[in-house]
Amino acid sequence: MGVVEERLFTPGPTPLPPSVREILNRPALHHRTSEFQTVLARVTAGLMRLYQTRQPVLTLTGSGTVGMEAVLVNLARPGETIAVLNAGKFGERWHAVARAYNLQVIELTLPWGSAFTAKEVGAFLEDEARSVDLVFMTHSETSTGTLHDLPGIAGECRERGRLLTVDVITSLGVHPVDFDQLGLAAAVAGSQKALMLPPGLAFVTISEAGWERAKSGGLPRFYLDLQKARASLNKNATPFTPAVPLVLALEESLRLIETEGLEEVYARHARHASACRSAAQVLGLELFSERPANGLTAIRAPEGKDGQDVVSVLREQHGIRIAGGQEPMKGKLFRLGHMGYHHDDDILELISALESTLNELGWIEISGARGVAENVFAEAVKGTP
Amino acid sequence: MGVVEERLFTPGPTPLPPSVREILNRPALHHRTSEFQTVLARVTAGLMRLYQTRQPVLTLTGSGTVGMEAVLVNLARPGETIAVLNAGKFGERWHAVARAYNLQVIELTLPWGSAFTAKEVGAFLEDEARSVDLVFMTHSETSTGTLHDLPGIAGECRERGRLLTVDVITSLGVHPVDFDQLGLAAAVAGSQKALMLPPGLAFVTISEAGWERAKSGGLPRFYLDLQKARASLNKNATPFTPAVPLVLALEESLRLIETEGLEEVYARHARHASACRSAAQVLGLELFSERPANGLTAIRAPEGKDGQDVVSVLREQHGIRIAGGQEPMKGKLFRLGHMGYHHDDDILELISALESTLNELGWIEISGARGVAENVFAEAVKGTP
Repeated sequence: MGVVEERLFTPGPTPLPPSVREILNRPALHHRTSEFQTVLARVTAGLMRLYQTRQPVLTLTGSGTVGMEAVLVNLARPGETIAVLNAGKFGERWHAVARAYNLQVIELTLPWGSAFTAKEVGAFLEDEARSVDLVFMTHSETSTGTLHDLPGIAGECRERGRLLTVDVITSLGVHPVDFDQLGLAAAVAGSQKALMLPPGLAFVTISEAGWERAKSGGLPRFYLDLQKARASLNKNATPFTPAVPLVLALEESLRLIETEGLEEVYARHARHASACRSAAQVLGLELFSERPANGLTAIRAPEGKDGQDVVSVLREQHGIRIAGGQEPMKGKLFRLGHMGYHHDDDILELISALESTLNELGWIEISGARGVAENVFAEAVKGTP
Repeated sequence: MGVVEERLFTPGPTPLPPSVREILNRPALHHRTSEFQTVLARVTAGLMRLYQTRQPVLTLTGSGTVGMEAVLVNLARPGETIAVLNAGKFGERWHAVARAYNLQVIELTLPWGSAFTAKEVGAFLEDEARSVDLVFMTHSETSTGTLHDLPGIAGECRERGRLLTVDVITSLGVHPVDFDQLGLAAAVAGSQKALMLPPGLAFVTISEAGWERAKSGGLPRFYLDLQKARASLNKNATPFTPAVPLVLALEESLRLIETEGLEEVYARHARHASACRSAAQVLGLELFSERPANGLTAIRAPEGKDGQDVVSVLREQHGIRIAGGQEPMKGKLFRLGHMGYHHDDDILELISALESTLNELGWIEISGARGVAENVFAEAVKGTP
C-alpha cells in the first residue's frame, strides 16, 4: 500500500498503543449484541470517571466537530444570541457553527496565543453579554497551545447563572476536567487525542440544567439529536450504527489510562510539556502561548524564519511529524504534540531531533536541549514521593 | 476482553476480509499528509467507478444516516415539500429526517415487503406530488429485503424533471447503481455493507443539477456542509478529521472488489441470494419480500412462530448471527445477510445451520436445503462461459 510510517508528535491524531491496534484488527462484531452493549456500558462508565461526572457521556460517530455541533443544536434556540470566547482556530469554530445556524454571536476575542482571565470573562459577562444564557469556550486551544483558565471562567459563569459549554478535545486526559464540580453545562471530547484512538468518535456530556434546556428548545437536527442518543444509551445502545471497532478499542485505551492512574497520566503530560518548554528555552526559542497547555507546545519561529521548515526537515530527515501553524499563524510557529501515548524516551528523541533540525536549518548553533529535558525527567523522578 | 467472535450473516455490519483487518491494525497516520491525500484520491476514484459517475464521491465520517441527512439538508429548502417512497424502516427514515427539519412530506407508502412499480410512482408524481421537486427513495430496503425498481422509478423522475435521491446503503456493490446514466440527483452509501469495512463512513455523490440546487438553497448545517466537503476534496482533503483507518482500509476493499471484477461481484451476490431463496423454498418457508434484493434474504416466520427464535438458536447453537425483524415486523421474519465478504462455502454453512435450527425448533421435519443451494452454485458454474 506504500504508506510511509512516520512517528506522530502532532496534536492529534496521536500514536496508537499496540494493544489498541490489536483490537482494531479483530473480526467484525455486531452492535446489536449483548457483547457490544457490555462494552458500551463499560466505556460510558470509564468516560464518566474521566469527566468526573454523574451524567452519562454520549459516544457519537464523527469528528470532534460533530460533538461541538451536537451540543450547540441541542442547547441553543432559534435566533438566540450566544457568547463565544475566541482566541484561536477552535474558538472561531464555535462562532462558525453558531453562524451556520443563524444564531447571533457576541464574542470576546483575544489575539492568538493569549489566554482569557477569569476577570476579563467576568467583566464581559456583566457588560456586553448580559442577556446571554449560553457561553462557549475552548479549554486547550490547539491552534496556539494555550490552556485557558477553565476553573476561573467556569466560576464566573456559575456566579451569573450562565451555561458554559467547553471544548475539551485536547484537554480531556491531559488536564483535569471536573465536569460536575465546575458546574459545566456541556463538554465535548474526541477520540484521536489523549484517548489514544484513531479519529472517528466524539464524546459529549451535558448537565441536568443543559438537558432541561435541550428539552424545551434546540435547533433542527436528526443524527445529532442528543435526547435520542441518551434514550438509546439507557439501553446501552446507540441510535445509529456506531464505529464499532473504535468503541471496542476505547475500552482498552480507558483501561490503559486507569491502570497508569489518572493523576499519573496528568503528571506525565505535565512532565513532557515541561521538558519541551525547557528545551525551547535552552534553544533560545520563545513559546507562542502566554499560558501553555500540557498536551502540546507551540513554539514561535524567530522573525524572518519559516516554521514550516522545521516541520519539513523533521519529517524528511527524521521521520517525525509535528504540526505547523494554522491559518494566520502558518509559518509563524510550529507545534509539538505530546498528548496521549508517549513515553519519556519518545519525548527525548523528539527533542534531539528538533535540536538537530534547528542546527541543520542554521537557526541555532547551540545544543543541550536533550540534556535539559533529561534533567526535567530526573527532577520529576526525585520529586515523586 | 471477553468478546465472543460470531460469524456475521447480518445485513451490516458484515465480515471484514483479513487484508482489510490488517490495515486497521496499522500505526496511526496523520490525515494532513501526502500519503493520506494519495489514498483519498484513489478511494474517491474507486467509489466513482462503483457509482458509475463522473461526479466526486464524498467520504463523510459517520453512519449511513449522516449521508442521508447531509443530502437532505444540502438539497432541500426551508419549509419545502418533498416526496418520499416509503415501504419499510429506511423509507421511513427519509420521512423522519425531513420532519426533523420541518419539511412537509408527501408520501407514497406500501406495506412492508411490497415493491414500488415505476407505474405507481409515475402516477403519484403526476397526481399528488405534482409540485414537488425532490423525491427520496431506498434502493434495497434492508428492513424487508426488497429491491425497488430503481431504473424504472428513476426514469419516471427524469421524465418529469424531479430530482431523485436514493439510499443505496445496502445495494452499492451488490446491484449495479449507474448514477449518471440513471440521472440520479444524489445517492448515499455506507462502509459496513458490501464495502466490507467497519461502520463509520458514509459516501455521498451528487449530480450537477443537485449541486446547482445546493448552491441556491439548503438548510442550516456545518459538519454536513457538502459544498465545503467538495471544496476540500478538490485538494484531496476532508474539512474535518476523517476516520483515517477506515479510509485506508477502503482502498483495500475497493481493490478486492476490482480484482474480483464488478460484474463477478454482482454475480456472486445474485448466486448467494438465489441459493438462500431456493433453500427457503425447499424448507417450505415464504420469502417476506415480493421483489427480493440480492444483499439479504428476508424469510417470513410461519403463522404462530417467532422469527426471533431462529435468530437465537442460530446464535447460541451455531455461533452465527443473523438479523430478526425490525419494529412492526419483530418476530414476523428473520433476515439472512449475504452482502460483502462471503464465499460460496460460507453460504452453504449458513444454510446447513439454518436447516438444523429449524429442525431443532420443530418448524420443519424435512431437509435438503444445503443440496439445493449446492445445485444453485453448480448451475452457476456451468452457466459461466
